[in-house]
Amino acid sequence: MKNKIDYSVYLVTDTGMCPRENLLDVCEKAIDGGATLIQLREKDISSRAFFEEAAALKKLCADRNVPLLINDRADIALAADADGIHIGQSDIPIDAARRILGDDKIIGVSAGTVEEALEAEKSGAEYLGVGAVFPTTTKDDAENVGIDMLRKVREAVKIPIVGIGGINTENIERLNGTGIDGVAVVSCIMAASDPKAAAAELKEKARKL
Amino acid sequence: MKNKIDYSVYLVTDTGMCPRENLLDVCEKAIDGGATLIQLREKDISSRAFFEEAAALKKLCADRNVPLLINDRADIALAADADGIHIGQSDIPIDAARRILGDDKIIGVSAGTVEEALEAEKSGAEYLGVGAVFPTTTKDDAENVGIDMLRKVREAVKIPIVGIGGINTENIERLNGTGIDGVAVVSCIMAASDPKAAAAELKEKARKL
Repeated sequence: MKNKIDYSVYLVTDTGMCPRENLLDVCEKAIDGGATLIQLREKDISSRAFFEEAAALKKLCADRNVPLLINDRADIALAADADGIHIGQSDIPIDAARRILGDDKIIGVSAGTVEEALEAEKSGAEYLGVGAVFPTTTKDDAENVGIDMLRKVREAVKIPIVGIGGINTENIERLNGTGIDGVAVVSCIMAASDPKAAAAELKEKARKL
Repeated sequence: MKNKIDYSVYLVTDTGMCPRENLLDVCEKAIDGGATLIQLREKDISSRAFFEEAAALKKLCADRNVPLLINDRADIALAADADGIHIGQSDIPIDAARRILGDDKIIGVSAGTVEEALEAEKSGAEYLGVGAVFPTTTKDDAENVGIDMLRKVREAVKIPIVGIGGINTENIERLNGTGIDGVAVVSCIMAASDPKAAAAELKEKARKL
């Protein structure tokens, strides 16, 4: 699966925006609309509950041939047989993650600077999440790096890039021509009244990135 | 290492009782006094910080030939090459943990009932943590099962048992003759003015368990 990932509409979950009992339903609607990859992000949940949620979501994603990544936790990814993990600069180092996960799993890394992007590529990341592109309320600690950073990172690395941070169906067009491979969104789909329609609109507009 | 573990004085860390910068120092003093095993427990810390702390503690423990277990997180255990994990009933299932860790790592499991103890033994746990033996303020959610439960679990399973929950240098003698393999303590060492002396006293008294 690893060599043919479509990063164009990358959904990051947030159960702060969507009750846990609706998570699978929202993810399924997003996939119906065109979401190409899902990252399950959880904080303040027991490992057992995280694992069970990941296992249920993996089943859905496998049925629909959409890769599932787990935020931060390589143990949950392995336990639920997810397709990989996404790690930030405050998670375990990339080389440790690779040692744990092996070569078949995807490791994506958050990068806010060209230096972080180059380091992540060198360490074997499969893709980069670069942001925050626009101001966002989802992650308080994410510095707004702007669209220009997407271009700089695009010039610096060869691996796929997804922009993240405040991207929605309205402002995605401002990323046209940046050469990135996709957009990672949270609220645009998780908090949408019609997650399927939101995903479909992103999918259509992502063609011009 | 797995086949010759001494469980007699099992230290569970708590950085709520001991500032992180003192953690290694307290653990070293505890080992000097006679602690035979350390479990690193962390909550509300980034995975990177958890990993770095685990790696530093692993170095100390390896130098002193004391096994290091990680609470809950198999990914941190693998990344820091710890000797295993300790999991509770709200962590990932034992079989998933074994799949991730392989046969060479130790998996310990918390059990509060004979049923949980039998299930854990059947699932391949190397040892059990049974408690809370005495009332404890360390874990709000730990039900006080009493000394009698130690005897019941001792009769029911063959794997090593450590009692946990409110055990200290004073009340450990109440566990004499229960046939358990050791005592797991938190505050008795972590909050002690003299961690080495506390560990030494537990070590001496643990001979009568």
